[in-house]
Amino acid sequence: MTASVLVVGTGLIGTSVGLALHDRRRVLLTDSAADRLDVAVGRGAGERWDGAEPADLVLLAVPPSVVAPELRRLMERGAGRAYTHVASIQSHVQREIDATGVDTSLVCGGHPLAGRETAGPGAATAELFLGRPWVLCPSERTGAAAADAVRALATDCGAEPLELSPAEHDRTVALVSHLPQVAASAVAARLLTGPPGAADVSGPGLQDTTRVAASDPSLWVEVLLGNRGYVAPLVRELAGDLDRLAAALESGADGAVRDLLERGSRGRALVPVKRGEHDRDFTSVAVSVPDAPGQLAGLFVTAADAGVNVEDVRVEHLRGRPSGVIELVVQPGDRQRLQTALATAGFAVLRAD
Amino acid sequence: MTASVLVVGTGLIGTSVGLALHDRRRVLLTDSAADRLDVAVGRGAGERWDGAEPADLVLLAVPPSVVAPELRRLMERGAGRAYTHVASIQSHVQREIDATGVDTSLVCGGHPLAGRETAGPGAATAELFLGRPWVLCPSERTGAAAADAVRALATDCGAEPLELSPAEHDRTVALVSHLPQVAASAVAARLLTGPPGAADVSGPGLQDTTRVAASDPSLWVEVLLGNRGYVAPLVRELAGDLDRLAAALESGADGAVRDLLERGSRGRALVPVKRGEHDRDFTSVAVSVPDAPGQLAGLFVTAADAGVNVEDVRVEHLRGRPSGVIELVVQPGDRQRLQTALATAGFAVLRAD
Repeated sequence: MTASVLVVGTGLIGTSVGLALHDRRRVLLTDSAADRLDVAVGRGAGERWDGAEPADLVLLAVPPSVVAPELRRLMERGAGRAYTHVASIQSHVQREIDATGVDTSLVCGGHPLAGRETAGPGAATAELFLGRPWVLCPSERTGAAAADAVRALATDCGAEPLELSPAEHDRTVALVSHLPQVAASAVAARLLTGPPGAADVSGPGLQDTTRVAASDPSLWVEVLLGNRGYVAPLVRELAGDLDRLAAALESGADGAVRDLLERGSRGRALVPVKRGEHDRDFTSVAVSVPDAPGQLAGLFVTAADAGVNVEDVRVEHLRGRPSGVIELVVQPGDRQRLQTALATAGFAVLRAD
Repeated sequence: MTASVLVVGTGLIGTSVGLALHDRRRVLLTDSAADRLDVAVGRGAGERWDGAEPADLVLLAVPPSVVAPELRRLMERGAGRAYTHVASIQSHVQREIDATGVDTSLVCGGHPLAGRETAGPGAATAELFLGRPWVLCPSERTGAAAADAVRALATDCGAEPLELSPAEHDRTVALVSHLPQVAASAVAARLLTGPPGAADVSGPGLQDTTRVAASDPSLWVEVLLGNRGYVAPLVRELAGDLDRLAAALESGADGAVRDLLERGSRGRALVPVKRGEHDRDFTSVAVSVPDAPGQLAGLFVTAADAGVNVEDVRVEHLRGRPSGVIELVVQPGDRQRLQTALATAGFAVLRAD
């Protein structure tokens, strides 16, 4: 028996849920914006909801301020047997839900820690939740059936469910999501005051550090204000650290400069390694190939014939050159064999041991 | 005629230069640390320098504080015909070089805007500089031959050379490299004060925003202090923006919160799109495949047979599952054809239009 899911709101998150569930669940879609819904249906995220059929689980993928009124409207018409949402702030939304007077035993809040800086159903991907935490935030009144339904949804999307109270959730995301957003926006905003063309002289550091600054300002105003009780003190502390660093730089106090950098390094070590970063366990073989159909196929056929399992692939296009560098990530024990096989097959292997 | 390059210092940058030049230049390597040199030679970055043969270009890939004394030592023994370095700060280093009394017409400073948070020759890659800016910083006394040699080196490494004065360089990198480093370290340092396990509840935002906080603190103390004249005022301004944001959050002033987020979004739009991010021009087809040798080969052969050029590949491993999701990035016009070909060949295509 496969539980059906009604996704309300076909933006980035809602459409990605539909794509992720593609072959596992019956997915019904609805949205107040017809054009968004058309894109989501067109991309295969699910079928249009006829407005009558009740779903086993209703997922509200709408901005935090709309969750409570939408939930009430849907529950009054009996749209589902359990309800969840994906708001990045939970206490505030839970209080608004409580105030509507609905049967809160059917409601379990949730928050997938996934997303990207590009919004809308066109940016959705089936892989958005793979390996990401999906926080379940049951209230004191949430029934076991509703919590179980949300946990199963998270698992079916490839995410890793974990449970926090709404307050614990909000305290945590203030630190691990809202503070990084604020810092990224503040650093990116400084670029507007720099010498013209400065941002063109950028390395991967600027690109990564400011990536989330491209996120939708309207959504983030809502999130930051909705969680300001936790966010504001953290922003004050961050500003204080930076003011102390500036003073240390002005006076040439290298101990204080080193202290912040070392604390930063220790803090960063707490962050789980990103999916796809296999640097510690894997090695790679790089090959220069012409940018033409069939070239990649030849590489992979050669690897397969040599009995080598390619764990990951990175493609680097060389601007202005009709070729690219392909990096095949493999187990260290397979490296030499793959290099030999590729060289024998006539490929331009870039690194040799 | 291929100009030879002597790389002094086989850390991340020096070894990556050797790997990048592999099939284009004669590369000689030296390092005060025998173990680093062994790794670089073992990875195929070049040959051990015998200490006698002079090179057409000497590249000092050593910490900024060591550039001037090393340069003097090498010039006194006639190690090369032109000299460059890769210091992340230029004015300070140039002043130290001038003070040594060497023939500065042979010296042209340089700085590749490449790097990663992992140090040492083991982290080096032939692709580190592909498409990245490599800033040439000639002094007023630098001769044309030295500047040309550095420009050719940058090009041969796949980088894009551009020219700035040492002062312009330092003002620019304070904004686009040193400020992001400081912000990343300060955000990551806050994680040490959070609830235990908080960093496990992290999404891509935290991972990207704090990535460079893992960089070597000792190197960065030197860089930040060496450029403190430009860095300190920027850090003050960033702290000021954050203090104003905290005040706005405390008082619920949504206009001021929105203002920072919108400025951040406009600033981020100035940052060139990262290599490999083809979201605007390309589309993708996702397929679920077992994690076994030959699976990728089948995908690429099918794509090639359909006449589709695969522009990029992303591999997502599903933790705890014996399969992965492969995303093939293609031209929008090729998408339908590739989906049909893959489905016909029996692959589990995840998205359908």
